[in-house]
Amino acid sequence: MTRETTADRPITASGVRRAAERIAGHVIRTPLIENDFLNEAVGGRVLLKAEVLQHCGSFKARGAYNLISQLNSDERKRGVLAWSSGNHAQGVARAARQFDTPATIIMPTDTPALKIEQVRAMGAEIVFYDRYTEDREEIAKPIQRERGLVLAPSYDHPDIIEGQGTLALETVDEARARSLTLDAFITCCGGGGLTSGCATLLEDVSPATAVWIAEPEDFDETWASIKTGVRQRADITKHTICDAIATPTPGRLTLPIMQRLVRGGVTITEDEVGQAMVFAFKYLKLVVEPGGAVALAALLTGKFNGLGKTTAITLSGGNVDPSLFAAILQRHGG
Amino acid sequence: MTRETTADRPITASGVRRAAERIAGHVIRTPLIENDFLNEAVGGRVLLKAEVLQHCGSFKARGAYNLISQLNSDERKRGVLAWSSGNHAQGVARAARQFDTPATIIMPTDTPALKIEQVRAMGAEIVFYDRYTEDREEIAKPIQRERGLVLAPSYDHPDIIEGQGTLALETVDEARARSLTLDAFITCCGGGGLTSGCATLLEDVSPATAVWIAEPEDFDETWASIKTGVRQRADITKHTICDAIATPTPGRLTLPIMQRLVRGGVTITEDEVGQAMVFAFKYLKLVVEPGGAVALAALLTGKFNGLGKTTAITLSGGNVDPSLFAAILQRHGG
Repeated sequence: MTRETTADRPITASGVRRAAERIAGHVIRTPLIENDFLNEAVGGRVLLKAEVLQHCGSFKARGAYNLISQLNSDERKRGVLAWSSGNHAQGVARAARQFDTPATIIMPTDTPALKIEQVRAMGAEIVFYDRYTEDREEIAKPIQRERGLVLAPSYDHPDIIEGQGTLALETVDEARARSLTLDAFITCCGGGGLTSGCATLLEDVSPATAVWIAEPEDFDETWASIKTGVRQRADITKHTICDAIATPTPGRLTLPIMQRLVRGGVTITEDEVGQAMVFAFKYLKLVVEPGGAVALAALLTGKFNGLGKTTAITLSGGNVDPSLFAAILQRHGG
Repeated sequence: MTRETTADRPITASGVRRAAERIAGHVIRTPLIENDFLNEAVGGRVLLKAEVLQHCGSFKARGAYNLISQLNSDERKRGVLAWSSGNHAQGVARAARQFDTPATIIMPTDTPALKIEQVRAMGAEIVFYDRYTEDREEIAKPIQRERGLVLAPSYDHPDIIEGQGTLALETVDEARARSLTLDAFITCCGGGGLTSGCATLLEDVSPATAVWIAEPEDFDETWASIKTGVRQRADITKHTICDAIATPTPGRLTLPIMQRLVRGGVTITEDEVGQAMVFAFKYLKLVVEPGGAVALAALLTGKFNGLGKTTAITLSGGNVDPSLFAAILQRHGG
């Protein structure tokens, strides 16, 4: 049985629970943070799932570990292949290293240097491509075939989706320990792996929680796809600072789940992203990358109205180059 | 009984435990973070007590809550007075607000803007003084007398010291839950409140743990005082980016405890502080202020050798202005 043959099985809340058992002790149970200043700014209670404190600085360690831990010994010997703008690459590289499995990663040449450095530090081999002129799948296929590698997709795979869903399971468990029920759950949404995994789990354990997505401008094709029922494509030649969630289109597996379970979507401008990053810097003391700050921006801008609600959001990742962060602090730091 | 009359009682591990009971549920039990990149850089295991994630971004909430929660109703009505370069001010302001007590804070005019803003947001009254030409105690005394305020010292008080010691109690408990014993514990040291509280607790529950202090250059008078047995004074007209721990001299109560229990001290340069802050930014995704980064710098520079050891350190605070942080990222972000 290869990963490919399991790629069409149903995605379920029990699958998320099994993933949680697999990753326990290997992936960080990140803190669910609450902050005076944020609660006051929003006029409600906000629970921040701080995945910036996850291994390699993003939630991607969850799905990658869940997938790679299930490879058989032949597959582990041959290795895994992934393409990624950076965070998934690090998650795969780290999980592969935990199982002593070779990892080959296809990455855009304009990936933030910090992400490249961390993937290298985890011992993975990097193959670069130009994301404006080359097709990463065309580059990946011959390498995958030749080396017999298992593909670890960045979102469109049940093991990945259910792995990312463990984030919502921890959030609900921790909220309950504080006697809180979630009115809403907002994700930073790229291809929809995190969103569809979390939505699947929430439907089962907290069905009254409204799942919303936040996307950057020019890359808000997921909410457009959900609204229209037709899979939209972003113009990937557009520039965005939100590299982590600049995906061309929602996944084949993730879109139907999101269509069924996502209640709303908001689009965040680059200035709003910068302001949210500065808020996180000043009051949360967390480094959040642009693509990891859109859900926070949804609340701070009021595009999602958190007044009187208990809202959980993902701070999905924190891998941002010092020079970009410094520029954002200078522009929006007041 | 006023706070003054309790100011000379002994400082004990049981006092730290009682403080832990008082603050439970009111002060954040901050996460003890471990990071791949840091462990690899040091060649040992490093446990980071992330007090940047504490209320108001520093450990000072602990001692302030411990002291103010013990005031009687008359004292609470009259209010509290503190002088502070910023973090203690915020801790006092927040705890005072929790008990609906008026807080008056004497702060230097050159306090980082973020700290001033947060003290104001907590509803405290601020009285500014010039720390190069004026004596804060001379400014404080008539205000205290006139209004009958209880003094909440920034370090030299048993309730403050024992409150800060709760940080070490949580660290040891959490380390034990991971089956770890601490070989060393390094604090960022200013007046010694945190250090003496933690050392008192560690002597009781983990006597084999070596307590070390890290101080900034030109303000390393505590280790000099411990070494010589004579209380040294820093030249407070010197400039340091480590405003949080730029104290003139160790405390009357804290120094004897530290003399008995502190095993070593290291002095950190401003460049080393900046490099540690950038490390925390890149790999820990935490915003650490200069004075909160000296213990991390002690490890990263090798001035404290963590090879093969399990070392806990404090990331004491994260209140740093965006402009300074941006400048440090540009200078040391590589």
